[in-house]
Amino acid sequence: MNNFEFKNPTKIIFGKDNYARLSTEIPKGSKILLLFGGGSIKKNGIYEKVMKNLSGYEVEEFGGIPPNPEYSVLIQALKVIKEKNITYLLAVGGGSVIDGTKFLSSAALYEGNNPWEILTNKRPTLKGMPFGTVLTLPATGSEMNSGAVITRAEYKEKFPMGGAGLFPQFSILDPEVVYSIPERQLANGLADSFTHVLEQYMTYPVDAILQDRFAESIMLSIIEIAPRLMKNSKDYKTAANFMWNCTMALNGLIQKGVPNDWAIHVMGHELTALYGIDHARTLAILTESHYCYNIESKKEKLVQYAERIWGIKNGDDNSKAKTAIQKTTEFFHSIGIKTKLSEYIENYEGTGEEIEKRFEERGLSGIGEHGKLTPKDAKKIVTMAY
Amino acid sequence: MNNFEFKNPTKIIFGKDNYARLSTEIPKGSKILLLFGGGSIKKNGIYEKVMKNLSGYEVEEFGGIPPNPEYSVLIQALKVIKEKNITYLLAVGGGSVIDGTKFLSSAALYEGNNPWEILTNKRPTLKGMPFGTVLTLPATGSEMNSGAVITRAEYKEKFPMGGAGLFPQFSILDPEVVYSIPERQLANGLADSFTHVLEQYMTYPVDAILQDRFAESIMLSIIEIAPRLMKNSKDYKTAANFMWNCTMALNGLIQKGVPNDWAIHVMGHELTALYGIDHARTLAILTESHYCYNIESKKEKLVQYAERIWGIKNGDDNSKAKTAIQKTTEFFHSIGIKTKLSEYIENYEGTGEEIEKRFEERGLSGIGEHGKLTPKDAKKIVTMAY
Repeated sequence: MNNFEFKNPTKIIFGKDNYARLSTEIPKGSKILLLFGGGSIKKNGIYEKVMKNLSGYEVEEFGGIPPNPEYSVLIQALKVIKEKNITYLLAVGGGSVIDGTKFLSSAALYEGNNPWEILTNKRPTLKGMPFGTVLTLPATGSEMNSGAVITRAEYKEKFPMGGAGLFPQFSILDPEVVYSIPERQLANGLADSFTHVLEQYMTYPVDAILQDRFAESIMLSIIEIAPRLMKNSKDYKTAANFMWNCTMALNGLIQKGVPNDWAIHVMGHELTALYGIDHARTLAILTESHYCYNIESKKEKLVQYAERIWGIKNGDDNSKAKTAIQKTTEFFHSIGIKTKLSEYIENYEGTGEEIEKRFEERGLSGIGEHGKLTPKDAKKIVTMAY
Repeated sequence: MNNFEFKNPTKIIFGKDNYARLSTEIPKGSKILLLFGGGSIKKNGIYEKVMKNLSGYEVEEFGGIPPNPEYSVLIQALKVIKEKNITYLLAVGGGSVIDGTKFLSSAALYEGNNPWEILTNKRPTLKGMPFGTVLTLPATGSEMNSGAVITRAEYKEKFPMGGAGLFPQFSILDPEVVYSIPERQLANGLADSFTHVLEQYMTYPVDAILQDRFAESIMLSIIEIAPRLMKNSKDYKTAANFMWNCTMALNGLIQKGVPNDWAIHVMGHELTALYGIDHARTLAILTESHYCYNIESKKEKLVQYAERIWGIKNGDDNSKAKTAIQKTTEFFHSIGIKTKLSEYIENYEGTGEEIEKRFEERGLSGIGEHGKLTPKDAKKIVTMAY
């Protein structure tokens, strides 16, 4: 087991009918900026539940944060924070709204002139404006971690950011929000959380017995609830399990003490930046080719995954690893997610070269758990995913 | 899944050679009271590693906190805190020293006249004197939770306490401390952590898929490392897995959203209070009789445990449940822990009646996940464990 540090101070308030907790968690006298996305919260009743419990606070609103939270939009929200002397941020949404709120939490207290530096200077944010979240879309785990990914469309760039100062103070997780989520987003949540676990697990063994079993627990649980969720998302028990699995898949716990990969994410972000493909689907596109390309260096974990997750007991190690990769692809297909780039866009030729070029220009030296995958490797992996 | 709230702000610093972190985690200018137990830290080198990294702080020492931290001893430490104007507590020890430190953290800021009230008024401590820990004995999980159990020998009482204000600010977990732990304490750590998981798991199903799998992960891991640890506790990988499993077994995570039992602990505390039997061993004594006595109400989870933990696939549910209980007893035996009260004390007759009487005098209405086990039930369970 590798040395590690773990601290996650976010307070999770899980279950139905907890919106009254907003007024016990947000300090009295706060000037709140309520942040949300495309406006679905005004149709599904969540907006009213939130506002009802914010009486007594001064509340400003900023809606319209898009999927892949866009820098230029967030800069408009930052103006509101400054002009209205906002002291507390409340994200009501999914990963994009929460990620955007994390950027704003950092930017609101940023002392430099240009907040874009937060995304380029690679420095963690140690103190941000306090914020809480009301999760409306389980998927990214952003409600219980301190990371975010921000897009700047004019540069076709998607950059990660984060830091110990960017944990939500609290997150209200109400499984009933799942009832009104469209099928496409449910599938995205399943694929996103499953791949989060894979990125923290499918590397090489370091005798971290419990971390491995926890990661496997989340994957087994997601596989178990996926068909239930896709069949009937209005079942409370199913919704609750879906939600808690997504949170635990990326709240920092299972990644501690073990090597992490994240190459699928690094490459996937490029597909979103270039073509606007849903984040979760970019991960599903790249999973099979990434694991096939790196089958030798990941062999031991692939075999463990084959045996413990998919119950594959026969065959040699190579056969087990290959079958497990195939099973993973079949899992994506079972929830209606296509796994080839050519199934998403017409002009896919040259994407590998484009991503290679972008990585080279950015001076990306090496990705993956060994830090050894070069831009040329990325080109090959992306090309295998056509 | 039941509604739940979860927050655990303790910073875990895990791995070898992390003692220098003491000076980054404890605020400059703190007046520290270093708390420890019987003095083994002065023999195994831990005391020197700690003190070396506390140069620059004013440090007072208080040693001699006994196993089952004793109220009258802690009151002496409280005097030191007041007289020396201590501002920060540092527990260097196992669960007893850390539990004692939690009591002191609460008592140091307690506004009443009699700190014994902290143990009798059932009110959670929301703010305590800040403290950190250096764990020297994996077992109780106290290094990453906000609970404690304090003994008062003159009353033969053992009472729980806790509250959101009693999480350690940080805990340094160095697996190398395991190398010098006596065999008896290693076995206690394994039995204690295993029973912690059982108490949070062996109740009735509420479709909390991930919580169940996480609990099972910890049990499977403990079963896997137990023979390795008992054979050679000087292997770093084994020590690290032992340590992290003990912490995760009782840091609050797996108990959220599911019913909890804790009857074995409530009864076990009495055996320690009456006879001074090691805490972990009182749990091992009571496990089999508790599960046999409650086999019907726990049947579904016992069967799941039988199948997933012990691989029992044949037989009807009753047979699976019984075999799983027997396997649990065999596990305790495999690490050298006896499971009958008569193997620990000579005059065991009447213990059931004594505990029934104590529970009745205390007005204990009902224990276990249904709150329905009466003092008479406790008498029967204890008697079955003779």
